[in-house]
Amino acid sequence: MNNSEILVQLTEMLEQRKSAAPESSYVASLYDKGLDAILKKIGEEATETVMAAKDVAQGENREKLVYEIADLWFHTMVLMADQGLSTDDVLEELARRFGVSGHDEKAARK
Amino acid sequence: MNNSEILVQLTEMLEQRKSAAPESSYVASLYDKGLDAILKKIGEEATETVMAAKDVAQGENREKLVYEIADLWFHTMVLMADQGLSTDDVLEELARRFGVSGHDEKAARK
Amino acid sequence: MNNSEILVQLTEMLEQRKSAAPESSYVASLYDKGLDAILKKIGEEATETVMAAKDVAQGENREKLVYEIADLWFHTMVLMADQGLSTDDVLEELARRFGVSGHDEKAARK
Amino acid sequence: MNNSEILVQLTEMLEQRKSAAPESSYVASLYDKGLDAILKKIGEEATETVMAAKDVAQGENREKLVYEIADLWFHTMVLMADQGLSTDDVLEELARRFGVSGHDEKAARK
Repeated sequence: MNNSEILVQLTEMLEQRKSAAPESSYVASLYDKGLDAILKKIGEEATETVMAAKDVAQGENREKLVYEIADLWFHTMVLMADQGLSTDDVLEELARRFGVSGHDEKAARK
Repeated sequence: MNNSEILVQLTEMLEQRKSAAPESSYVASLYDKGLDAILKKIGEEATETVMAAKDVAQGENREKLVYEIADLWFHTMVLMADQGLSTDDVLEELARRFGVSGHDEKAARK
Repeated sequence: MNNSEILVQLTEMLEQRKSAAPESSYVASLYDKGLDAILKKIGEEATETVMAAKDVAQGENREKLVYEIADLWFHTMVLMADQGLSTDDVLEELARRFGVSGHDEKAARK
Repeated sequence: MNNSEILVQLTEMLEQRKSAAPESSYVASLYDKGLDAILKKIGEEATETVMAAKDVAQGENREKLVYEIADLWFHTMVLMADQGLSTDDVLEELARRFGVSGHDEKAARK
């Protein structure tokens, strides 16, 4: 499986958690706390990404940076789900911006 | 094509730009400016994501939020390429964390 | 003069710039661009403060950190002026929070 | 007393807490956790300042913004103390930058 299938599965999971009880999972509790709580996490994770990158530049293990970026991506996915958007919207925007549409690519492969 | 193929293509493009002249593209110029310039962008895009989300909560168009999150993801991908990492590292970390390995998933589908 | 008189003078300057032409100064142009432009600067300066502090921890000159924190304070003062607040509001909040009112302190010194 | 005396007193308090037991106060526990914990707070407070300003622009009470900026200033002061700097260093940088030196001002008043 392509690693990027993970985003599809994670998007589904984030959608399902919307109907879960707040105390049933971390994500469900974030939805329940509301937008500001989610945005606060994005600010935190962006800061931790910056700190981890500075540490890596000083010779520390790169795993910490991978971990923080995963955290940052994850919380932007929670934000998208909370606002009725999905990872696909962001992937399509990236495709549009960099001139790679799924359809064109599909055709090119044939 | 799955939308998430876009991340694979974008990762390849970011890798290729490493050997490009700084003045040849935005990404090549970012690499040339160095880590701090890339991190500064991540701080900026995280802030713009927060502002766009607050605007959406007030009734503004959600496209702006999609645009800012795409910007944030893109610049974390530039950071990963710059530090010898790739999108795959982050996707694997997300898979590991949420108990979905590519292999298990593949097996489960059969 | 106590160094902190500088905040009083800076607050006055920021108030005066409100009636200046946008092209006449950096601050006047920031007011003209509006709230989002000011908030974007706060996100930027906070990120630069974090990066400078990590550099100082690695042995770099502390002047860079002082410079970035001054930038951050300055832009929060622009934000306050833009929103009809002043440095005094923040100083009073700090005094209230830490149990030191100007009046009490004055009395205590006699 | 001028409100800005509060910064002098707060600076003294922050210096004293350096020799306090970690469990004796919030500031002492922040010093004990180290630089990254302090920087994480700065990222958080900057994000909360941005969110509060967006809320104020939508008609919410300005007190929340004052509160968040006070939090941001306070944590930059903790950072300065932690790194052997003080509020005076930042105030002097602001004075230098805006052409108002304490000495000149003192002379001008006579």
